[in-house]
Amino acid sequence: MGGDHGPAVVVEGAVAAVREFGASVILVGDRAAIEREVTRLGAQSLGLEVRHASQVVGMGERPSQALRRKRDSSLRVAAELVKDGKAAALISAGNTGAAMAISMFVIGVLPGVDRPAIAAVLPNLRKFTILLDAGANVDPKPWHLLQFAVMGHVYARDILGFDNPRVGLLSVGEEEGKGNELTKEAYEQLKASSLNFVGNVEGRDIYNGGCDVVVTDGFTGNVALKLMEGVSQRTLSAVRDAAMSSPRARLGGALLRGALRAFRDEVDPERQGGAYLLGLRRLGVVPHGRFTRAGFAQAILRAARGAREDIVGQTQQALQGAGALREAPMSAQVASLRHRR
Amino acid sequence: MGGDHGPAVVVEGAVAAVREFGASVILVGDRAAIEREVTRLGAQSLGLEVRHASQVVGMGERPSQALRRKRDSSLRVAAELVKDGKAAALISAGNTGAAMAISMFVIGVLPGVDRPAIAAVLPNLRKFTILLDAGANVDPKPWHLLQFAVMGHVYARDILGFDNPRVGLLSVGEEEGKGNELTKEAYEQLKASSLNFVGNVEGRDIYNGGCDVVVTDGFTGNVALKLMEGVSQRTLSAVRDAAMSSPRARLGGALLRGALRAFRDEVDPERQGGAYLLGLRRLGVVPHGRFTRAGFAQAILRAARGAREDIVGQTQQALQGAGALREAPMSAQVASLRHRR
Repeated sequence: MGGDHGPAVVVEGAVAAVREFGASVILVGDRAAIEREVTRLGAQSLGLEVRHASQVVGMGERPSQALRRKRDSSLRVAAELVKDGKAAALISAGNTGAAMAISMFVIGVLPGVDRPAIAAVLPNLRKFTILLDAGANVDPKPWHLLQFAVMGHVYARDILGFDNPRVGLLSVGEEEGKGNELTKEAYEQLKASSLNFVGNVEGRDIYNGGCDVVVTDGFTGNVALKLMEGVSQRTLSAVRDAAMSSPRARLGGALLRGALRAFRDEVDPERQGGAYLLGLRRLGVVPHGRFTRAGFAQAILRAARGAREDIVGQTQQALQGAGALREAPMSAQVASLRHRR
Repeated sequence: MGGDHGPAVVVEGAVAAVREFGASVILVGDRAAIEREVTRLGAQSLGLEVRHASQVVGMGERPSQALRRKRDSSLRVAAELVKDGKAAALISAGNTGAAMAISMFVIGVLPGVDRPAIAAVLPNLRKFTILLDAGANVDPKPWHLLQFAVMGHVYARDILGFDNPRVGLLSVGEEEGKGNELTKEAYEQLKASSLNFVGNVEGRDIYNGGCDVVVTDGFTGNVALKLMEGVSQRTLSAVRDAAMSSPRARLGGALLRGALRAFRDEVDPERQGGAYLLGLRRLGVVPHGRFTRAGFAQAILRAARGAREDIVGQTQQALQGAGALREAPMSAQVASLRHRR
């Protein structure tokens, strides 16, 4: 029921994911609304399961209220299915704060994790950079940033295959001492850990591959992610506009189109299918609310891939190896991470 | 002496500003180094004034240390010249924190302003959007954000000629209640003011002109500004790369080049010449450290223009009209701003 365009686009994405990738999807929400969309798409025979939920969490709703008052929200019912193992991953494009609060309450967090983080896996010139937290925790503490770094490290190492991934802290300058109170404290904790901490990094290290894991608070991370995506799209549309401005430019645009396709795809957020919600006992995926059919299909593919790769199990194992992040002194906490490689 | 490329590029920019715009420039720093560059450029007859300063504030140096220990730094000597009215504006591409601390100490802030803010004037599809703070205050309080909003309002109204400029608060979602502790408190204060507060905005409102003044803390604002600039440049260079990938694409790129020029210029940070440091008793301009000759020349032009437009006087007058921001209840503080229009 989430997403800017309501269930129509979500169901379209699910139907595409079943048809194109053979995904197995349970749609949770208002049964009548969902079945109407399924019928509209002529997809009754595809075997899409529908679970009815009588309530919807609104975009402006406070997470705590959604949690207390809406026991039969689509988000809650979906989280229960995932918790009970009836589904391998939770996908929600609605209210992110509510998705996080309800997931934490229903599904729970992994031992050693205080708060889940949204991990965006962003393609860059070389490979990928993981940006986390991209929006789950707007006021984290320094040790949360350390936990995010550990989760990003594990993801980069075990899923993406990076050897000793470089972890950077997003700040306003590369020099040590640059940053706000949060990043200055987090800097000390990251430096004392045994992660491959490369110090402060800037936004460019996300898109040029200068760093494998970029750690930040969910406020800055969310602003940064949306800006990166938005500015890429805006620049490409300026190129498109320029290519419509005269017959000469139109010919130029036509000749250039093929060569630009790879880059255009690389920066298309729908191609990524959204981000992971890491740190829960089950996998979560958060597509952008504004996604169209293609983005929702990719989100389902991302969830399926993440479940197959057992991201949650890998993270849990690595965190166990690392000891309880919450209690041990910081230097010891992630010391064992290195030895697992 | 500031900037990533040292005095060579700064002097080149100053020489260009004198030759191209007829600017009048005092260069402050190591006299021998500066005069060597002036001679290298054959610019001895241009009348560039040189003031010797025996010390330089390093990029990694703590502002408080620079202020206490380096009484003869180029930054400090330049600030003294500006304070004494021997120069109309201070330009520094070095350590931003030190520039702010030394300016506050030597030049002082306007009545009603606790902290100066870096105001970036960013071109967008319609006109300009002012983003502040773009890097001066990494841990501001909510009332600082209100002060930034007032300064942005005055700049947009009196210098850019916006009628009742729309002021937005950069956040992670448009709904009221979205944001971190800082933005939630600032939201209430902005809402209670008589500014034309349009609520939370997102990054896209900066570059699509959805908002005239975008207010944020200096950490988020700095990350956002660098990302916007960086991602635009990176996307354009991807277009350039694509246009070199085959004879066909090369022809396309050549045909498209002219049509793209206006946009390329619009997003070129050097064209903007850096940002204003607003809230001081004199004008400040902070170019990016990585600027080349063209960017430093534009920074000098921006400072000259800002001094001619008397941005500081306008701001001071509007702040006086608005009463003491520090003491009056927030709703009264900016109430009178509206009536001045």
